[in-house]
Amino acid sequence: MTATSDRPALAQRSTSAGDAASTSEARVDVESLSTLLLGRWADLRASARATAGEEAFQRIEGLSMREHRERVLEQMRLLVGKGQVWRAFPEHLGGANDPGGNLAGFEELVAADPSLQIKAGVQWGLFSAAILHLGTPEQQDRLLPGAMDLSVPGAFAMTEIGHGSDVASIATTATYDPETEEFVIHTPFRGAWKDYLGNAGVHGVAAVVFAQLITKNVNHGVHAFYVPIRDTNGERDELGRLPFLPGVGGEDDGQKGGLNGIDNGRLHFDHVRVPRTDLLARYGSVAPDGTYSSPIESPGRRFFTMLGSLVQGRVSLDGAAVTAAKLGLAIAVRYANERRQFTGATPTEEVVLLDYGTHKRRLIVPVAEAYAAHFAHDRLLDLFHSVFSGEEDTPEQREDLETTAAALKATSTRFALDVLQETREACGGAGFLTTNRITSLRADLDVYATFEGDNTVLLQLVAKRLLADYGKQFKGITPGQMARVVVERAGDMALHRTPLKRAAQALADVGDPRRAAGHLRDPETQRALLTDRVETMVADVAQALRPAQKADPETATNLFNAHQVELVEAARAHAELLRWEAFTQALETVEDAGTREVLTTLRDLFGLSLVERHLAWYLLNGRLSAQRARTVTSYLDRLVDRLRPHAQDLVDAWGYGPEHLRATIATGIEKERQDEAREYYRRLRASGDEPRSEKSLRKASKGGPQAR
Amino acid sequence: MTATSDRPALAQRSTSAGDAASTSEARVDVESLSTLLLGRWADLRASARATAGEEAFQRIEGLSMREHRERVLEQMRLLVGKGQVWRAFPEHLGGANDPGGNLAGFEELVAADPSLQIKAGVQWGLFSAAILHLGTPEQQDRLLPGAMDLSVPGAFAMTEIGHGSDVASIATTATYDPETEEFVIHTPFRGAWKDYLGNAGVHGVAAVVFAQLITKNVNHGVHAFYVPIRDTNGERDELGRLPFLPGVGGEDDGQKGGLNGIDNGRLHFDHVRVPRTDLLARYGSVAPDGTYSSPIESPGRRFFTMLGSLVQGRVSLDGAAVTAAKLGLAIAVRYANERRQFTGATPTEEVVLLDYGTHKRRLIVPVAEAYAAHFAHDRLLDLFHSVFSGEEDTPEQREDLETTAAALKATSTRFALDVLQETREACGGAGFLTTNRITSLRADLDVYATFEGDNTVLLQLVAKRLLADYGKQFKGITPGQMARVVVERAGDMALHRTPLKRAAQALADVGDPRRAAGHLRDPETQRALLTDRVETMVADVAQALRPAQKADPETATNLFNAHQVELVEAARAHAELLRWEAFTQALETVEDAGTREVLTTLRDLFGLSLVERHLAWYLLNGRLSAQRARTVTSYLDRLVDRLRPHAQDLVDAWGYGPEHLRATIATGIEKERQDEAREYYRRLRASGDEPRSEKSLRKASKGGPQAR
Repeated sequence: MTATSDRPALAQRSTSAGDAASTSEARVDVESLSTLLLGRWADLRASARATAGEEAFQRIEGLSMREHRERVLEQMRLLVGKGQVWRAFPEHLGGANDPGGNLAGFEELVAADPSLQIKAGVQWGLFSAAILHLGTPEQQDRLLPGAMDLSVPGAFAMTEIGHGSDVASIATTATYDPETEEFVIHTPFRGAWKDYLGNAGVHGVAAVVFAQLITKNVNHGVHAFYVPIRDTNGERDELGRLPFLPGVGGEDDGQKGGLNGIDNGRLHFDHVRVPRTDLLARYGSVAPDGTYSSPIESPGRRFFTMLGSLVQGRVSLDGAAVTAAKLGLAIAVRYANERRQFTGATPTEEVVLLDYGTHKRRLIVPVAEAYAAHFAHDRLLDLFHSVFSGEEDTPEQREDLETTAAALKATSTRFALDVLQETREACGGAGFLTTNRITSLRADLDVYATFEGDNTVLLQLVAKRLLADYGKQFKGITPGQMARVVVERAGDMALHRTPLKRAAQALADVGDPRRAAGHLRDPETQRALLTDRVETMVADVAQALRPAQKADPETATNLFNAHQVELVEAARAHAELLRWEAFTQALETVEDAGTREVLTTLRDLFGLSLVERHLAWYLLNGRLSAQRARTVTSYLDRLVDRLRPHAQDLVDAWGYGPEHLRATIATGIEKERQDEAREYYRRLRASGDEPRSEKSLRKASKGGPQAR
Repeated sequence: MTATSDRPALAQRSTSAGDAASTSEARVDVESLSTLLLGRWADLRASARATAGEEAFQRIEGLSMREHRERVLEQMRLLVGKGQVWRAFPEHLGGANDPGGNLAGFEELVAADPSLQIKAGVQWGLFSAAILHLGTPEQQDRLLPGAMDLSVPGAFAMTEIGHGSDVASIATTATYDPETEEFVIHTPFRGAWKDYLGNAGVHGVAAVVFAQLITKNVNHGVHAFYVPIRDTNGERDELGRLPFLPGVGGEDDGQKGGLNGIDNGRLHFDHVRVPRTDLLARYGSVAPDGTYSSPIESPGRRFFTMLGSLVQGRVSLDGAAVTAAKLGLAIAVRYANERRQFTGATPTEEVVLLDYGTHKRRLIVPVAEAYAAHFAHDRLLDLFHSVFSGEEDTPEQREDLETTAAALKATSTRFALDVLQETREACGGAGFLTTNRITSLRADLDVYATFEGDNTVLLQLVAKRLLADYGKQFKGITPGQMARVVVERAGDMALHRTPLKRAAQALADVGDPRRAAGHLRDPETQRALLTDRVETMVADVAQALRPAQKADPETATNLFNAHQVELVEAARAHAELLRWEAFTQALETVEDAGTREVLTTLRDLFGLSLVERHLAWYLLNGRLSAQRARTVTSYLDRLVDRLRPHAQDLVDAWGYGPEHLRATIATGIEKERQDEAREYYRRLRASGDEPRSEKSLRKASKGGPQAR
């Protein structure tokens, strides 16, 4: 965080007098906002953030892949000593049974090095968490200590080369052999190799392997097995790898587009035998004679329950992505507040980048979105904690958690990539230098868009839930009633899509654009616009998909496919609404009046930016008259202007200091250079030695005495 | 390029029967299209492409920064032997005076390694080209041979830490000393260090340095000087660097977000003296007594003439960006045509990714845009060649060239980044592995968006030209006539913005969405929509900026700033129109009927995608009725469906083979794996040993005898 004394004074920050509305006079209380943003697990988050800023945990740029991997493993050992990474585990094993607090801290690791965050996520959030959530108490007691204290680095072997998103179709088999009371883990073909597994390339000595459980010639679907993969008594090779155990093989995934501190790799199994007791048996077990049993009767529900227990990965990626976006914005806003280019109103004074119309917009709108994403993530953490701490672990809560995590993870990881690209470009050539951090962050964050659930697939999950909820409204409804609904809906469409409603809006706004703008600032209007869009899109798709229920599979598939784009778009709209609601809800918790005023304007900016993004939809569906729609952009610009003087405060309040930003251009060096240059020119002018410019001489000779 | 036999048969490619319109029956003649796309300098382009595919020129991933830099230098030495890089230079120096052919070949280097393309660009396109374009014939003869044959690796020292886009404000001074007949090159403060210079970090021994030329205490503005920077008789240090000459200093820029095969660095000068004769003197020279003279009287025009001679950088970046986008698309389309995930209509058959609604759209729409960008670049090369070969070197042509280069460079570099991100994600986890190429390409291309002119700044240049052209219409117009124009414009706005015109459209389309769709496929409609948008936006901004002419500087600056976003948007619209026109023009040159039919559909898709992107604008400005606007997306989806069977042909026709794509997933390996998996399951079913699934058993037991 920039010390208050270093931050340019308010007055200095904006050279454009422009719209001196109330918000620019309000002040953000950076310290109290910063505390508020630490959220429910403030102490844990603050201490994890401090850890992330320690030199030992900071990423060193330019290391070779091997050095980077070893450094990250070393950092994980240091983390074990700090205890934070154990918080989600049971108390009797040294944990704190505090899943929310655990994630709050875990997410902050991204500021140290995304490789550390993700490799720690593999060890404690996937490998150990699978033992915790899928294992029996006996298995937890037996297997967790080594996983937790990192004496057993482990891989989470779910994804296969051939099947990523479609986990149910993985091809690895675990066939029970009652003779020896063992499972035989086997990879039947190349596409069934486990791939992209952190810890598999070098460090892992065990893995939780997902495979089709087959016993008595019946396939009971995907289950997880604890499988040792490397011989801990063997000799390490020149790359530090222990030899694979018999029947186990693999490859290093090698260099990646980012996250090169993680040793991703592939694994395959040639009839590898593991004891019957190493099937992680909470949701399904096999008796010595081969009889399968499960507390969950339906194979489908069993599968989703097992997978659902791993939702924390998505929750934490949402938080980490928001943090990464904040880091990029904090760097770029600081630089844009100092960097000057081209003269404006006065010939000797160059304009600060953040005073340019395009620059203001490209940075301040994402600041608003980052706040929305932050507050939405806070709500997601609450939901996650209530389920996983057992406070309120109901099927409905779990379902909400999964849907919300999918919606927010897909939205925030996309947002982080867009922001990191925009901020890189906003910093020009300097943004491309590794010393200014942004490119490395972006490279690392890239894969967040497709791992722990490909974003497109996740958004479809969300859309399906929205459709299901929509359908529930009509459960038990008679055909006659349904017909009425359809007619009403058609009537609604007719109303919105004909000029009637638009005409009414237009009449209401006649001659007064301010009325239209004021209308847009009303939170109820914003809520109505955002909510209506989700509901209408869902209803439209539901209606379009209705024939699929009675169609043959091919027609149904084609129909679904033809509406896939709208489905995904509806899910995005849902995520946007969630964020807006979270932002709005958070405003109530802000006590300082000035801060609340600025944040309210920021929330309005976020809301309006969504409306602007989807303006065509609002127009096509008659939700906004052309007249109102035309005010959206100009009003949004006014909000950006009002917020511009607060931009630095808003990013400072995120609480990331130089030890987190680690960008040379965000250290004040640009201002020093500008000051030095201006001082040089000032002295030169004062000395009387300043050369005259040919241009001004020509003007003078042409223009005669009256020219200056 | 995939051999025809390797390509999946047409019938296989689309599993969605859907809209079997004419285009899917037409066939692309890949070979003849490929030849057509080689363009005007087909032989040169083909031979440069072959060079780019040679092993010696291919990028080796995972090299250290130092190794990568040395490899690229070595590759440049090999290029000298091939002669291609000299084509733009005068014949008496070994060149061919063929600027267009030179660039056509040069751009292909990006397929070998973007670092090679850019470092070659620094040496021959900037350092040597500055000597060629800014030097006198004597200076060319004296300085070019060493620059051309790489015995003098050189830096192009224009940008300073403090001034990138605003070249006129650079602070380095070159003060003439008549006593010794030398210029004194000096860096007055830290912000005036030259920065981001290729060849400055390690290899450069000379530089073309841009500085404010001061003689007789008059500043004549920015001029270029030939300045030796390293002592070629000195001893190399452990990094292979020769010592700096006295007074010269510098730093290595170190690691970057990409392009790490280039040794970017900083330079500064402490009263370094160069002979009077090493001012590159074509556009300005200093007599021994210090008297300045120039063939161009106006300092402003002189400055822009000097800078204008360097436009080829932008032209070549446009071409290279389009090539990079093609490489990403070729990889992702091939993979999407083979990769399967989730079952669809039949339970044993998984769906090919490219048959999914979202996937089709995310890849095929950019394929259309890549074609548009390709043809637009061809036109840009023609324009460039006509000016720089002297065929038609007029001020108007130069102005057109500069505007077009700025518009297209800004658009295609943005496009390349978006495409490389989209294709990376479309390939899932595999896309993140370096072995699949896309992430490295994207990292390298990142800086294309801000170097050789920041895209936002370039688009403003374009917008200013559009405004100037708009203003010219009214040159010499009387106030009365002007008033009439304003009234007419207001009338036009009233017509378009009220429901009158919309109502007329709506009436015309009543009950027949096909009529609305057919209307959109008419090229004249597309042209009218795209042209009208540019013209209207320009006219709107011009009108909004009118008060600036008589305002004080501060008000004028603020007004301009308030409309900066629209200015940039108008420039983008102009670039989009250029591309659409180039695509349309190119259709006439396609002789094969099937190919022409498919490409026409592709052009329609491109046109419609632009209309969809800006749908809100068309609605707000009354250019499309809601009814027509609603057909845009559904019609666009139909075009995507029609083109889907041709996707592989369309990317194959770009002519990049495995030696250029160098992506494991684009080698057919995915299909092999899928075939192996399917064969395994086929045999398993045939063997009768296939385990039954618990799910189907449960269904059977529940459903009784009638269930299957």
